[in-house]
Amino acid sequence: MRIIVKNVTLVDGLTVKEDHDLYIKDGVIACISPCISPIKVNSDDIEESHVVQIIDGAGKIAFPGFVNAHTHLSMVLFRGLADDLPLKEWLEKEIWPIEKNLKPQEVYWFALLGIAEMIRSGTTAFADMYFYMDEVARAVEESGMRALLACGIIAESYDAHGRKEIETARNLIVDWHGKANGRINVALAPHAPYTCGCEILEKTRDIAVSAGVMIHTHLSETADEVKRSYADLGMSPVKYLASLDLFSVPILAAHCVHVNEEDIALLAEHNVMVVHNPTSNAKLASGIAPVMQMKAVGVNVALGTDGAASNNNLDMLEEMRLATLLQKVTTKDPTTIPAIEALRMATCSGATAIGIGELAGTLTVGKRADIVLMDIDKVNMLPSYDYISDLVYAANSQAITDVIVDGQIVMERGNLTTIDEERVKAKARELSVGYRK
Amino acid sequence: MRIIVKNVTLVDGLTVKEDHDLYIKDGVIACISPCISPIKVNSDDIEESHVVQIIDGAGKIAFPGFVNAHTHLSMVLFRGLADDLPLKEWLEKEIWPIEKNLKPQEVYWFALLGIAEMIRSGTTAFADMYFYMDEVARAVEESGMRALLACGIIAESYDAHGRKEIETARNLIVDWHGKANGRINVALAPHAPYTCGCEILEKTRDIAVSAGVMIHTHLSETADEVKRSYADLGMSPVKYLASLDLFSVPILAAHCVHVNEEDIALLAEHNVMVVHNPTSNAKLASGIAPVMQMKAVGVNVALGTDGAASNNNLDMLEEMRLATLLQKVTTKDPTTIPAIEALRMATCSGATAIGIGELAGTLTVGKRADIVLMDIDKVNMLPSYDYISDLVYAANSQAITDVIVDGQIVMERGNLTTIDEERVKAKARELSVGYRK
Repeated sequence: MRIIVKNVTLVDGLTVKEDHDLYIKDGVIACISPCISPIKVNSDDIEESHVVQIIDGAGKIAFPGFVNAHTHLSMVLFRGLADDLPLKEWLEKEIWPIEKNLKPQEVYWFALLGIAEMIRSGTTAFADMYFYMDEVARAVEESGMRALLACGIIAESYDAHGRKEIETARNLIVDWHGKANGRINVALAPHAPYTCGCEILEKTRDIAVSAGVMIHTHLSETADEVKRSYADLGMSPVKYLASLDLFSVPILAAHCVHVNEEDIALLAEHNVMVVHNPTSNAKLASGIAPVMQMKAVGVNVALGTDGAASNNNLDMLEEMRLATLLQKVTTKDPTTIPAIEALRMATCSGATAIGIGELAGTLTVGKRADIVLMDIDKVNMLPSYDYISDLVYAANSQAITDVIVDGQIVMERGNLTTIDEERVKAKARELSVGYRK
Repeated sequence: MRIIVKNVTLVDGLTVKEDHDLYIKDGVIACISPCISPIKVNSDDIEESHVVQIIDGAGKIAFPGFVNAHTHLSMVLFRGLADDLPLKEWLEKEIWPIEKNLKPQEVYWFALLGIAEMIRSGTTAFADMYFYMDEVARAVEESGMRALLACGIIAESYDAHGRKEIETARNLIVDWHGKANGRINVALAPHAPYTCGCEILEKTRDIAVSAGVMIHTHLSETADEVKRSYADLGMSPVKYLASLDLFSVPILAAHCVHVNEEDIALLAEHNVMVVHNPTSNAKLASGIAPVMQMKAVGVNVALGTDGAASNNNLDMLEEMRLATLLQKVTTKDPTTIPAIEALRMATCSGATAIGIGELAGTLTVGKRADIVLMDIDKVNMLPSYDYISDLVYAANSQAITDVIVDGQIVMERGNLTTIDEERVKAKARELSVGYRK
C-alpha cells in the first residue's frame, strides 16, 4: 500500500514541520516534503502504477506512534477487579489466584481488546510479558501491531518446573522472533530478581546471548523488594543483576523506582533500558522513580502503562503527562521534563528501549511508518500555539483519528480496520462474566 | 422539559443502582425507580399532557455532573502559550503582561470555549474568578451552565483603584447573583492575601456578610508565598485570614498546598472549603496539598482544574484520577482515597464547596438535575466489574454522550445543543492569532 498524508503538521521529538506531505511506500516513510504529487510518485515507479491512498491531514498533527515499553496486555481482563489495595494483598489474594486458572483463549481475546485500546490511544508498539504468549503473538500478527513479546518466567531453580518455563520461553523465540514482517520480536523475561533463582537468571542470560534477543524484567519496583534483597543477598537488586552479568545483554528493566546512586551509575554504565510506569507506581503506592537522576547520567528512560489491573488503562497520553507532572512536583522545578522531552520518552526513547530505535520512534525518511494522526481542532485543544504542548498537556485520545503501523492503516477515521471491534467487545463481556464478584 | 432516562446504571458518591429509570421534571430529579412509565408520568399531571423525552441509558452510567470548584475559565485563551516555566516568570513575564490588554469580547468567547470543553468532559458547575465577569455570566446564561462567578480583586488599599475593584465586584452581585433560574451565583474574590491589602480583605468580608455571598480566594499556593507571609506579617496566610475574620464568611480557598497543622486545624474549625488543584500545583511545581491530613480533621476538600494556562485542560476526570494517585504515592498507602472517595471529591464535595450542596452533587430525588451519561461499552473500559473504578481509573471524556444541567440537555449524543461549537472554535482561532509568538 502507498499512502500520502497531505498538508499535515509533523511533530516528533526532533522537530515540528507545519503543512508538509508525507509519503509512505512499502511500509517505509519514503519522503517528507512541503508538496508531494501522487502522479509524480507513481511515475517514479517504472514497473507499474500503484493505487495511492490520500489522507487529508489538514487541521491535524502527525506524530510517531507511542511505544508502551512495559505492559502485561491481557491483564485488561482484570481491569477494575481489585483496586485500592496494598501490592502484596493485591497480588497474592486477588491477581495470582485467578491467573492460575487463566485460559489461552482468554489471553488471546483480551490481547486483542488491549491492542484495540492501544491503537485508539495512539500506541503502535509495545513490550509485553505474560503467559500463553503464542496467543498474544497471534493477536499482534492479526492486528498489524508491533511488539516485543516475552513469556514471564517465574522459577526458583532449574528443576522440572524451571526447565519447562525456560523451554516455553525459548519456543516463543523459535516460533515468533522476527516474524509478521519483522513486527514481532521476542525477548526472554525472567519476571524479577526476587521471583527467579540465580541459576534461572544465568540461564536466561546465556540463551539471550546465543539467540541474540533482549531480556525484559521487573527491577527495584518497591522499597520492600530492595530491603529483602539487601537482607537475602547483601546487595541491591540492580547490583545483584549486574553481578550475574545480566547487563551484558540488552535489557529492558521496568520500574527502577527504588534505585540509589550506585544503582543508577550501574544502569548508565551498562546501558540498561529503564521503563518508567508512573501511573502503576503511584496507584500501588510503590513510589516515584528518580527519572531526572537517571536521565542526568545518560540512562535511556522509556514509558509504560504496566498492566491495566494496576493503571487502569493503556493510554500513553496519560503516562506522558503524569511522567512530567510527577517529576516537576518532586524536583520542585517546573522546567523539569518540558513537553518535548516527555514526547521523546513516549516515542524515540521507547523505540530505543525495546530495540527498534533504528526502525521507529521518529518521523524520519527511511524508518518504518508507525504514525498517528490527531485532529487538533477540538475545544480542549484550542487555541493552538505550540503543537507539542497541545499533545503532551491538553490532548486526550478522543482526538486521534488515524493510526498507521508498518505502513498499514490500522485505524481510519476512527474505525479499526484490522480488528472486529464489536466481536472483541462481545467476547470481553462474555469471558469476563465468571470473574465478576 | 420532561425527560426519562431509561435502564441506566446510577452512580454517585452514595450508591450504585443498576438498571434504573430516572425522571426529570421542571429541572428536578422527580423520581428514581426500576421502571418509570412515560404514560403514567403524564397522567399524574392533571393540567396538561407534556412531551416526555426518552433517553436510552442501556450500556451507560449516569453520574452527577462534576463540579470544577476553582478555575479561571477564559484563560483557555492562553492554553499552551507558556509552559515549563517557574511560577514567577510565568506570571510576571508571560501571563500578566498579556492579561493587561485583554478585551471583554475575548473573555466572552473563550468562556464559551471553556464551557464547551467542560460540558464535553462532564462538568456541570464551576467556580470562576477572573476579569470582565459580566461576559462570563453571559456565556453561562446562554450555555445553560451552572456557576459561582467572581471578579478577581487585586488592590493594595481602598484607594481609587481599590474602590473601583470593589465596585466592579459589587455590581456583579447586583446584576447576576441568583440569576439564570438560579444557575448563577456570585462570590467576592480578593485574589490572595498577598495581592490584597488588609483594608481590601476586610471590605470584601463586610460586603460578603451584608450581601450574603461567599468569598473565593487563593490561599497558601506556594512555599514562597508562605515564607513571605511569615516575613511580612509574622504568621501564615491561613492564620492571617483567620485573624481578619475572613473565615466568618463561607469561603472557598483554592490550593492550600503549604499548610501546617495549625493551619489545617483553623481550616477545619471555620469550615473553610478547600479546593485541591492537583494538575496545576504539579505543573507549576508548587507542591502536593496535604489532602489526607485536611480530610482527616473534617475539612471539605473539592477539586478544581485551575486555569487552562497551567493545566492545560479543564478535564475533571483527569483531576479526579491525579488527586487519588498523588495522595496514594505520597502517603505510601494504596488504600488512600479509594475510587468512591475521589468521585465524591469531584461531585458532592465540590457542590458543597461552592454552596450548592443542597441542589446538586448527588443523584437524589428533589435535587436539580445536573447529570452526565457515559457509554461504558468502550475498549478502554471493558470488562466492567466496578462502575466507580471504571469512571475514576479507566475512563476518558470520549465516553461521555449526554449532559443535563438544571434539567436541560446541553449535550445530546455527543452534540452540544446550547453552544454553536463551530462558531466558537472559529472565534477562538481568529481571536488567538495576535497572541501567537
